[in-house]
Amino acid sequence: MSNIVELLSVGTELLLGNIVNLDAQILSQGLSALGLNVYYHTVVGDNPARVREAVEIAKGRADIIITTGGLGPTCDDLTKTILAEAFDRNLVEDPETVANIRSYFEKINALDRMTPNNFQQALLPEGCQIFTNHWGTAPGCGFFSEEAQTHVLMLPGPPSECRAMFDFWGKPYLQALSEGVIASHTLQFFGIGESQLEDRLRDRMNAMENPSLAPYAKLGECELRVTAKASSPEEAETLMAPVVAELRDQFPTLIYGMDVASLEEVVLSLLLSAGKTLGLAESCTGGLVAQRLTDLPGASQVFRGGIVSYCDQVKEQVLGVPSDLLAQKGAVSQEVALAMAEGARRVLNCDVAVSITGVAGPGPDERGNAEGTVFVGFSAQDRSFVRCLNLGQRRARIRTSSGHTAFDLVRRYFQGLPLEDG
Amino acid sequence: MSNIVELLSVGTELLLGNIVNLDAQILSQGLSALGLNVYYHTVVGDNPARVREAVEIAKGRADIIITTGGLGPTCDDLTKTILAEAFDRNLVEDPETVANIRSYFEKINALDRMTPNNFQQALLPEGCQIFTNHWGTAPGCGFFSEEAQTHVLMLPGPPSECRAMFDFWGKPYLQALSEGVIASHTLQFFGIGESQLEDRLRDRMNAMENPSLAPYAKLGECELRVTAKASSPEEAETLMAPVVAELRDQFPTLIYGMDVASLEEVVLSLLLSAGKTLGLAESCTGGLVAQRLTDLPGASQVFRGGIVSYCDQVKEQVLGVPSDLLAQKGAVSQEVALAMAEGARRVLNCDVAVSITGVAGPGPDERGNAEGTVFVGFSAQDRSFVRCLNLGQRRARIRTSSGHTAFDLVRRYFQGLPLEDG
Repeated sequence: MSNIVELLSVGTELLLGNIVNLDAQILSQGLSALGLNVYYHTVVGDNPARVREAVEIAKGRADIIITTGGLGPTCDDLTKTILAEAFDRNLVEDPETVANIRSYFEKINALDRMTPNNFQQALLPEGCQIFTNHWGTAPGCGFFSEEAQTHVLMLPGPPSECRAMFDFWGKPYLQALSEGVIASHTLQFFGIGESQLEDRLRDRMNAMENPSLAPYAKLGECELRVTAKASSPEEAETLMAPVVAELRDQFPTLIYGMDVASLEEVVLSLLLSAGKTLGLAESCTGGLVAQRLTDLPGASQVFRGGIVSYCDQVKEQVLGVPSDLLAQKGAVSQEVALAMAEGARRVLNCDVAVSITGVAGPGPDERGNAEGTVFVGFSAQDRSFVRCLNLGQRRARIRTSSGHTAFDLVRRYFQGLPLEDG
Repeated sequence: MSNIVELLSVGTELLLGNIVNLDAQILSQGLSALGLNVYYHTVVGDNPARVREAVEIAKGRADIIITTGGLGPTCDDLTKTILAEAFDRNLVEDPETVANIRSYFEKINALDRMTPNNFQQALLPEGCQIFTNHWGTAPGCGFFSEEAQTHVLMLPGPPSECRAMFDFWGKPYLQALSEGVIASHTLQFFGIGESQLEDRLRDRMNAMENPSLAPYAKLGECELRVTAKASSPEEAETLMAPVVAELRDQFPTLIYGMDVASLEEVVLSLLLSAGKTLGLAESCTGGLVAQRLTDLPGASQVFRGGIVSYCDQVKEQVLGVPSDLLAQKGAVSQEVALAMAEGARRVLNCDVAVSITGVAGPGPDERGNAEGTVFVGFSAQDRSFVRCLNLGQRRARIRTSSGHTAFDLVRRYFQGLPLEDG
């Protein structure tokens, strides 16, 4: 058995786009971690003929079929009936499930809502392992068809139930079938594009099978996933360690983290360990950098605040940028970026401050600075620096990349790296 | 042709659970609105044989196949090659796409990152309609196979590009296939939940077939879609007009817009027409409100700036909140919210100012204010007001809903509605 898995989600609400297929993501993550190969996701609506056809296709190409949805009491819930039919099993009533359903309604004080169709949920394929649902009413189940050489698992559709049932019942059931584990690490890069990264890694990527390398693009940054297959988690780590170390050597300044959620998360933990505070002066990013940092719990320990200076008067009166400097150099200039960062450090009384001033567009500013021209200033007691960026012509990209750069300068400062590019 | 659609998403990252299949949801919503029947979603990895098999299955059961993903420059992007093969078409280089790719890299000032693999994207199936990608580099395409009697559309994988390309290219392409037209309007609500809205509309919803009503939940707000099917756009509008008018009568303060992108967009256009300026003082939202407003081009005409006062000292020294008020009432209080809004109006020299101060959590603040307690202050020359919110225990929800409330107060003020709830 090669442990090929197909996820079959049943629900018209998915086909109408009312909900996203979160179950497929949850299960895929869990199955990959078990070393099982998810090769197919299929979604069909609450239509018996189409569900049956989809089951026949899955039978022909997968060793393990996991269904989500269609187990509940309403009349369009049909997964169990079709699957039992497709694998030649009768549905039999499980007395324990009947009792559980009754006690569930008692517990939520809603016996008056307990209609006969609720007991459809107690009908389960003969000879299956029943997955009691401690998080809802519809039980799931698992069985192995000798004839088809296929494992079938059925899980409920609501994502919270699906996740809990998979962890509690699905994992132990499947663990026994897995021949190894898959583990991966993600290296996060800022300052290099996906195709540029791939170019620099192509020879290595082609030569490697286990671990394997795969780059992914994100807005303004990119990621490189290192994945290893082994017989134990420890062995997988041993396979990955030298590859990760070599990559860190190859890109000493561009890798900002491994398995971290974001650049701002790295910055927050650097500030926390250094015991230092940060302040911001934002013009074209208009609060975006402050918002990203304060999305993280714990930001209040290191973040003093920010000034969103969206007009010259605020730069002058709140940040103390000299009016003749503004008049002479214009708001989008290296000099004003620096004065904003220094002003923010003074006004907000913080250890380091970053400023962003630029043209987010559409179009150039009144002084003729092109859309996408951005200056990011940095000020600390021992160091000041301004980076000039040309970010092209898309507002969202200009703002996001400016923010990335602001965080990256703080990261580089606290990691003792050069603030200059590269 | 019965217009059965299959969505075929190509990407190992979906099968590993690294990302959720948002494309499938976006397209399903859009296709349903066009009156097309999405019967299947399929996901396969970046494996030529399995993509090919999936295409064969789709050919056999769908009239329209829409692929997402696998159009980019890296070597695991293979959708076009396989689809061209499956429908017997050669791939030919499109010179316009070559030029577009070059100019994209010029625009984002990254010619050094333009590697040869980027030009794979310019290979497209012979005789197709090219969907130029104004939102990225990989173009999509559409063609009709006479032999298979199947329409094939290919769209890029990143959800923002997929959505934009579908709206710009996919909809007009598919509209022509649909019999009759489907038109819809979306009414946007703030201040009422989806189930509460459904409850107030249930009788009407059950009685109506054309136009139909469907509510959708969004984080902190909700939408009601009115959809009509008719033989012409004009007829569809005539069917919808009285329903929309009745709904506006029923919810005079809660509907903030129709077919608008967001509450902040409504606020921006109200400020522009009134010729008034706005300023912000943000504590627990930490720049989120400023960021949302400045995401919109044109914000600089009405937005003066904001103070992100993430510590008491900044509230006191920058916004001028009296220190004894802070000591007595605490930062999370009605009085401080008002002083922050008034301070912002003075310091930023604007017509109206909004302030937000509260506990975004996790956990209560040091004075024992519960997580989710938020005060939103409003100050204009003729009016001041503070709304108190209890937003529960999820940081993202607390911040988003606080921001919605801030924008909603400005909207109500300029629309001459009461600032009080309801």
